[in-house]
Amino acid sequence: MAKTKPSIPKGTRDFGPEQMVRRNYIFDTIRSVFRKYGFLPIETPAMENLSTLLGKYGDEGDKLLFKILNSGEFIDKADPEIFRPGNSNAASLAICEKGLRYDLTVPFARFVVQYRNDIAFPFKRYQIQPVWRADRPQKGRYREFYQCDVDVIGSNSLLNEAELVLIINEVFEKLKIRTLLKVNNRKILSGIAEVIGHADKLIDITVAIDKIEKIGIEAVNAELRQKGIDDSAIEKLQPIILLQGSNEEKLSVLRNVLKDSEVGVRGIEEMEELFRYVDAWGDLSTQIELDLSLARGLNYYTGAIFEVKALDAEIGSICGGGRYDDLTGIFGLPNVSGVGVSFGADRIYDVMLQLNLFPESVSSTTQVIFSNFGDKEVAYSMPAARNLRNAGICVEIYPDAVKVRKQFEYANKRNIRFMVIAGENEMQNREFSVKNMETGEQVTIAFENLEEYIKSNL
Amino acid sequence: MAKTKPSIPKGTRDFGPEQMVRRNYIFDTIRSVFRKYGFLPIETPAMENLSTLLGKYGDEGDKLLFKILNSGEFIDKADPEIFRPGNSNAASLAICEKGLRYDLTVPFARFVVQYRNDIAFPFKRYQIQPVWRADRPQKGRYREFYQCDVDVIGSNSLLNEAELVLIINEVFEKLKIRTLLKVNNRKILSGIAEVIGHADKLIDITVAIDKIEKIGIEAVNAELRQKGIDDSAIEKLQPIILLQGSNEEKLSVLRNVLKDSEVGVRGIEEMEELFRYVDAWGDLSTQIELDLSLARGLNYYTGAIFEVKALDAEIGSICGGGRYDDLTGIFGLPNVSGVGVSFGADRIYDVMLQLNLFPESVSSTTQVIFSNFGDKEVAYSMPAARNLRNAGICVEIYPDAVKVRKQFEYANKRNIRFMVIAGENEMQNREFSVKNMETGEQVTIAFENLEEYIKSNL
Repeated sequence: MAKTKPSIPKGTRDFGPEQMVRRNYIFDTIRSVFRKYGFLPIETPAMENLSTLLGKYGDEGDKLLFKILNSGEFIDKADPEIFRPGNSNAASLAICEKGLRYDLTVPFARFVVQYRNDIAFPFKRYQIQPVWRADRPQKGRYREFYQCDVDVIGSNSLLNEAELVLIINEVFEKLKIRTLLKVNNRKILSGIAEVIGHADKLIDITVAIDKIEKIGIEAVNAELRQKGIDDSAIEKLQPIILLQGSNEEKLSVLRNVLKDSEVGVRGIEEMEELFRYVDAWGDLSTQIELDLSLARGLNYYTGAIFEVKALDAEIGSICGGGRYDDLTGIFGLPNVSGVGVSFGADRIYDVMLQLNLFPESVSSTTQVIFSNFGDKEVAYSMPAARNLRNAGICVEIYPDAVKVRKQFEYANKRNIRFMVIAGENEMQNREFSVKNMETGEQVTIAFENLEEYIKSNL
Repeated sequence: MAKTKPSIPKGTRDFGPEQMVRRNYIFDTIRSVFRKYGFLPIETPAMENLSTLLGKYGDEGDKLLFKILNSGEFIDKADPEIFRPGNSNAASLAICEKGLRYDLTVPFARFVVQYRNDIAFPFKRYQIQPVWRADRPQKGRYREFYQCDVDVIGSNSLLNEAELVLIINEVFEKLKIRTLLKVNNRKILSGIAEVIGHADKLIDITVAIDKIEKIGIEAVNAELRQKGIDDSAIEKLQPIILLQGSNEEKLSVLRNVLKDSEVGVRGIEEMEELFRYVDAWGDLSTQIELDLSLARGLNYYTGAIFEVKALDAEIGSICGGGRYDDLTGIFGLPNVSGVGVSFGADRIYDVMLQLNLFPESVSSTTQVIFSNFGDKEVAYSMPAARNLRNAGICVEIYPDAVKVRKQFEYANKRNIRFMVIAGENEMQNREFSVKNMETGEQVTIAFENLEEYIKSNL
């Protein structure tokens, strides 16, 4: 058979031990916080029926789905007419029934509807799994990447939003990433659009608010005019575009501007209630900022909108989410409200690497390695290795009786702290020589005292 | 948009919280043992290039690969001639470049070759990831399932085999599954075939050995004759077919029968060396049995062969593996020997469920839930919830201020131990009422003493 030069599909990645240990540190931290807040794990299959996925992410999203070719005689089972140039998209639907999941949200919605009779609502679930997108690969954008989603479904309470804020705070506190949490509320944006009489111009307004610091008020107003917003509306928008100060100061301006909009007032009340809950909790490490320019997922979110930025790294958002009021309607279960956020493990990884935030212990695993000078020496070492492993210590025995230099090289490369040496002398005296690979120090320890020595020097 | 009745592709599964918690218990146990023995985690992409996968699993295996349809205008880029009835297999290779991984062994081999200059050999890796096979789904056989592989590559030492035996022993001891570990050695089988002059009849011989208890020696001999094995060979096979007793007794018979076969003698020596290492370790929970009928992966393994059966459940093997001498040759790196085993998480799950082996604590997660009678009560509870969570306790606050009966129902359904109640009375006296949901007992506790009370009653 021909030799294959090994490679992997573009946009995908292998993770070696060092990366895995660090990635697991991130996943374990996120998971431990999710659990502490009472969220339960679920997992869904990598493959979903295309009928579940199609039409949920817009036309662009549909194109980015990886489709699985039907097994067997897919040509014979299809209309021969479909295999004509220019018809690939339609043909793909005739020869593929399944696709790889594009995110965790749609599979979760499908899950909730499918098992609605077995689920105890409010349902607090987390899900940490890879997703796949046939995007053009580029720096920091992959075709396979992990999402870490946490959602509450079946409860309208703003306490859920508050708990998510606390989770965000605790995850990044534990990871030692200084963060800014931006919050917005779709209802406030709707109120603004309503008050100025341009319900269709939500995006233009948020873009304008976003640009004020860079281009100044005159340029912003000019842009708004260009977008077809009339002068009286622009006049009304001035206090909102120029909004500054503390969250309380911003809310106070908004209360005045939006007082005639029912939905706007409701948005302000929601924001206030969220802040009250979070204040009751006590001090947070994460800064929280009301930011009206935050418009992520505007087609989708109906209440709170969240986005987290790392303060000390130039990178996009590392976490985001919001409240959606009809997640499951598409699958036949209307009026189920949910709220959730998703942590971007890959970007978090990049931030932590850049800022050198991974704890040192994370880069090593094995703590003790026994030398190997032959069968007899290994047999002598094994009960000691057993004791150490029973004490929860990660232990290797070098498998081959090769030159000791080679064994030390391996221990060094692997960052193993202690090399335990058992040669003829040591066996005769029922001892071990123990070399600390960091300090170079070497001591002789009685066989029976090895565990105690290692434990007190780790 | 049309409503989609939610379902998942056949042969795939969703895992709800209860299953997930149990599955994670299995994965965490396996992973913790792998780590204790110094194995390092890696992960590879779900999608591999088809050139990596094809031809590695035989013609049957090739058919069971899930192929990913190329994005974009796949018809325009292909020769129009290929889309004709009966040509689906060839056509699939023209319109698909990628496939889902079929096992973890081939991706691992690809990984080792691709990164051979960065890897510290001997390379001890573990990998716990799903694999996909377009098999006909049936009870206990899925199209997506997890494999938990642990391998050492780049070392010929039999200490590696011994360490794998210890890992098997420890994993099943921790999971409380009583097991029988069957071991065989390809070199012993080759020696037998050599001695009787039928090198091509390895499989027939192992099948015969396997049947002796069921059908008796006469019937076995008749079958061998039918397979074309001559009488003098059958004569020589008698002590092997009738082999009984302890491992030492079996080896003693084999030493005599195989004394003229170099490869056979080497096989016996390997088996003896393996047993010596394992004996040096001390007592094991797992029984080890030399079983010459064990022929799994015979085309593949070159030395030790392992298979684990659960003693108290009627199910196939729950773990298996062996030594392979040329894993990476297909990718251009010859003469790299490896040895490994794979744990079958799905079957282990079934055994543990059947034998009721999951610890009770595994079925619950949240330990404390606070009642919700409104904003003020929640604000009062939050600092107490914070204290408990900071102490590592899993805590929920019921999100909606609904009837208390509904909140109790939820706590019951979720198996939460303590309901902490904060109503007007409790707030006035700066206390909480705490109901133990298992015993029904309810006590009143001062606000400051809640953490201590919960901790000492968990």
